[in-house]
Amino acid sequence: MNPTHTLVVLSGGIDSTVVVALAHARGDKVSAITIDYGQRHRREIDAATQVARHYAIRHRVVNLRGLADVLDGSALTDPGVDVPHGHYAAPSMAATVVPNRNAILANVAVGMAVAWKADAVALGVHAGDHPIYPDCRPEFIDALRACVEAGNAGYHVPRVEAPFVHLTKASVVRLGHALGTPLDLTWSCYEGGATHCGQCGTCVERREAFDVNGIGDPTVYTGGR
Amino acid sequence: MNPTHTLVVLSGGIDSTVVVALAHARGDKVSAITIDYGQRHRREIDAATQVARHYAIRHRVVNLRGLADVLDGSALTDPGVDVPHGHYAAPSMAATVVPNRNAILANVAVGMAVAWKADAVALGVHAGDHPIYPDCRPEFIDALRACVEAGNAGYHVPRVEAPFVHLTKASVVRLGHALGTPLDLTWSCYEGGATHCGQCGTCVERREAFDVNGIGDPTVYTGGR
Repeated sequence: MNPTHTLVVLSGGIDSTVVVALAHARGDKVSAITIDYGQRHRREIDAATQVARHYAIRHRVVNLRGLADVLDGSALTDPGVDVPHGHYAAPSMAATVVPNRNAILANVAVGMAVAWKADAVALGVHAGDHPIYPDCRPEFIDALRACVEAGNAGYHVPRVEAPFVHLTKASVVRLGHALGTPLDLTWSCYEGGATHCGQCGTCVERREAFDVNGIGDPTVYTGGR
Repeated sequence: MNPTHTLVVLSGGIDSTVVVALAHARGDKVSAITIDYGQRHRREIDAATQVARHYAIRHRVVNLRGLADVLDGSALTDPGVDVPHGHYAAPSMAATVVPNRNAILANVAVGMAVAWKADAVALGVHAGDHPIYPDCRPEFIDALRACVEAGNAGYHVPRVEAPFVHLTKASVVRLGHALGTPLDLTWSCYEGGATHCGQCGTCVERREAFDVNGIGDPTVYTGGR
């Protein structure tokens, strides 16, 4: 029997990289798709490419930069909006919401999974995302799954998987560490500097996730630890 | 009270153009989004631009041509696959299925509706599409609506509308005619010729829809009627 073919939506951050590690560890055939939706910087996309190379998996970077014209008003795509600093779960982080982002990215990945006849599409959403990002919650994943089933009924229907949807960021990092994931290759920072800023919401969350587990953080932060 | 702001996913075909006509006739503020997903030809997009100009509505054409790399294997995006001729509802028309297309297009439109604070996103899917295209069926529209609600919960949630989902193509043309829709500006043909080919599935369906109603068909077909 052929192994399950899992297509991971790989952003280049920790969570989706650990999804690759998990699928790889359980023996899946793994592929990855990274969507360039006009993020403010290329660091995440470069990180995704390095992760794919590490695992020697098929990887497609899809240029959908035209989405930046649509999804304006978010600090992640609009250069006119400042990236907020502080804790990841703070209300100020609402500025980093990209409207309907995961529905778009996941559905593009589903289209690719149909073309590649992949059995599953896997997303790295986790519970730490829930307070601010509705499109990371279990209710959204369930609704997305139903939508994919209805939208492709009678043709190839890839399963939608979100193995970390109930895990904290710290648990994802812990699992990633146990699986030997190259977390040093990943990129989290919302700013586009040479090193992680250490100040934006996602840097704060990244540091915390390593610290809570007592795992040495391989990340170089601007200004040090 | 402000009028309802409806964002129409405008392909340049008859159905979405009649959605614009309907929203306009009932007094909505109407906007339109056309997504260039690497269709084989530009005729549809040019038609959408002409329709938008006719109604003097805000119109954004979003360049997502990178989707053609994802959605390969369909006769509508892959130049290596022939456009099938014959009746629209025939099994051979499965070659014109673009995997997960409407989920992608509708979700991009929802992102734009959030950015523009539009109240609703309206799609021109109709019952004639049901045999071949699962992403045109009422089950899909219901699932999409639930997904949009879950994915944007707590933020701006546009309504998903598909006013023709239970209508035949002939009824859509009849309504369009009654509303004075400029159907001569629309484009249906899957081939990219100077005039409608008259032979492909969507041309066959277009001719039928006018003929059934006894409405003069303004379309110029290659080789005449």
